[in-house]
Amino acid sequence: MAADGRPAVFPLPPGSTIGIVGGGQLGRMLAMAAARLGFRVAVLAREAESPAGQVSAVEIVGDYGDPAAVGRLAAQSDVLTFEFENVSAAALAAAEQAGAPIAPPGRALAVSQDRVEEKSALNAWGLATTPFAAIDGPEDIAPALRRLGAPALLKTRREGYDGKGQAWIGGAAEADAAFAAIGARPAILEAKAAFVRELSVIAARGRGGEVAAYPVGENRHEHGILRTTTAPARLSPALQADALRIATTLLEALDYVGVIGVELFELEDGRLLVNEFAPRVHNTGHWTLDGCEVDQFEQHIRAVAGWPLGPTAPLARVEMSNLLGDEANDWAVLAADPKARLWLYGKRDAAPGRKMGHVNRLSPLT
Amino acid sequence: MAADGRPAVFPLPPGSTIGIVGGGQLGRMLAMAAARLGFRVAVLAREAESPAGQVSAVEIVGDYGDPAAVGRLAAQSDVLTFEFENVSAAALAAAEQAGAPIAPPGRALAVSQDRVEEKSALNAWGLATTPFAAIDGPEDIAPALRRLGAPALLKTRREGYDGKGQAWIGGAAEADAAFAAIGARPAILEAKAAFVRELSVIAARGRGGEVAAYPVGENRHEHGILRTTTAPARLSPALQADALRIATTLLEALDYVGVIGVELFELEDGRLLVNEFAPRVHNTGHWTLDGCEVDQFEQHIRAVAGWPLGPTAPLARVEMSNLLGDEANDWAVLAADPKARLWLYGKRDAAPGRKMGHVNRLSPLT
Repeated sequence: MAADGRPAVFPLPPGSTIGIVGGGQLGRMLAMAAARLGFRVAVLAREAESPAGQVSAVEIVGDYGDPAAVGRLAAQSDVLTFEFENVSAAALAAAEQAGAPIAPPGRALAVSQDRVEEKSALNAWGLATTPFAAIDGPEDIAPALRRLGAPALLKTRREGYDGKGQAWIGGAAEADAAFAAIGARPAILEAKAAFVRELSVIAARGRGGEVAAYPVGENRHEHGILRTTTAPARLSPALQADALRIATTLLEALDYVGVIGVELFELEDGRLLVNEFAPRVHNTGHWTLDGCEVDQFEQHIRAVAGWPLGPTAPLARVEMSNLLGDEANDWAVLAADPKARLWLYGKRDAAPGRKMGHVNRLSPLT
Repeated sequence: MAADGRPAVFPLPPGSTIGIVGGGQLGRMLAMAAARLGFRVAVLAREAESPAGQVSAVEIVGDYGDPAAVGRLAAQSDVLTFEFENVSAAALAAAEQAGAPIAPPGRALAVSQDRVEEKSALNAWGLATTPFAAIDGPEDIAPALRRLGAPALLKTRREGYDGKGQAWIGGAAEADAAFAAIGARPAILEAKAAFVRELSVIAARGRGGEVAAYPVGENRHEHGILRTTTAPARLSPALQADALRIATTLLEALDYVGVIGVELFELEDGRLLVNEFAPRVHNTGHWTLDGCEVDQFEQHIRAVAGWPLGPTAPLARVEMSNLLGDEANDWAVLAADPKARLWLYGKRDAAPGRKMGHVNRLSPLT
């Protein structure tokens, strides 16, 4: 519902309020993109002067899981969106009760919150994943290992990110320790994917059902945390088309509105497996900030506001590097590098591994 | 002085506070650029939820001429800058008393505030302008017309912009009416410049004295208001070099820090006259937002924060068009145009002639 109590009508005109649940860097860059298009932004953040709150007209401080706080945000927003997928069902219900349209749809959030549900849904939509098994207790691990082979990766079903809540299992003897290590919670065991590259595709679907995808990026992770994305990745037209087919299938199956990030494994035989998807703008899409006329953040705002999607053609080849923890202390060196486009997130505390900013380095398309 | 009471040390680290006097679209785009580099922004604006305040961590509502309000802003800023040149001497003194370094320097603001002082200074620095005369009363107009020729343009010495406070005079008989029309205030009479094109150069000077200029833009005004800038303008290397020489002369003469906008007239014989300069980011530099890796707003923030200047090479040819008044109502058409990069300023009231946004249209460099 609009701030004035009337139901939202799309496309939302400039001056409408975009509500963002989450005060981090994704919310910050979404807020800046919304401002570029003349929108007003309200955010719900855990702390005052959050990265997103610093660049928004309104910052509500509260917990993302608190239905009252989400409801307060929704009540003054013409549309509500999210910078992360772990939004509680109660919070979504509160937003719906406040009458704010939600994008992406709650179902996309719910499916992505549970790795077993996510992979099951992907398979049901005809999208290949690595083989997996649901693990409810340590006694499920030995039979699953016999089917999936060892080593296999044990992950919590819910709420893991950036490599947290994960443990490799080399054999059945390690089952108890691994299950304890991830917090003895409902889990998934995933077969090791014999991938040659990690790729991702960032795509968007508008309120009219139109789909636009950016060129595929090639990713390098360390300790479960993204270090670099290079895009457009050098890959065959067939692979590019396959990535687009996967993204389109997902977006349509979820009746999706907004930007989605889909992580892929490229196998030796050229097949693509879906590793996971994130129903939001995605770290592997930060290259678009300097590599495309319309970046993933503006694209997401366009989609959720019911605007036409923008062009996704690359203007340059970009290598995006995350600045983790005290790597952001190198800001002076990076600022002096004419090839480095620096983005910093306004975070005060540079805890180890924390994403403090990123750098895009451009080179000509060849 | 920094918010913690210590004198500012340059370069300012990310997390420092940039204070911006002025809540309009220039302040808005400065604030967004500052956020990209990890700075916190505080603005002084005339109204709550101003275009700049909507994207800033702190918005102080007050009058730009109120020394107390400027002092409050300065007291919590590590450096103070301005989105316009008509800052009162009292306000500048208040900022200095609060201990905040000011950039650009107060002298640049003072010189540009008075058209007679401005043109006198330009001439003293060896930069050609159109011939002019100071006009203190209507009786000064006839002798000035004999020297400058008719028609000539009468302008208030101070505070005119976008064609306001100006009147053409066809002959001495119109002197009294013209002087009354501009408010019977101290004025300047300018000879008509027989120019073939209006050009502008946007340049920056860092705290170490380094200078960087963007390619020259070609401007089209209507009724004294900028309609379009096309950049890089098609012009000879000699003219491009002359524009750079002019900008560099100005920046060095003023011991300048920050971005400056210099409006030029190109005469039939290929000479360049300086029309005026603005000690701030400039409407004719908005093309850099989509045409360069580092736009004029980031460049200004880099300069005032003591960071190295960024590259100014063009990535594309850009036609920038201002959206005046209800032209911004065409947002839906513009949003659907894949060639149009839309910037809207978050202003509620679309008064006729008011700058509501702009559009950048890109084409390949040829």
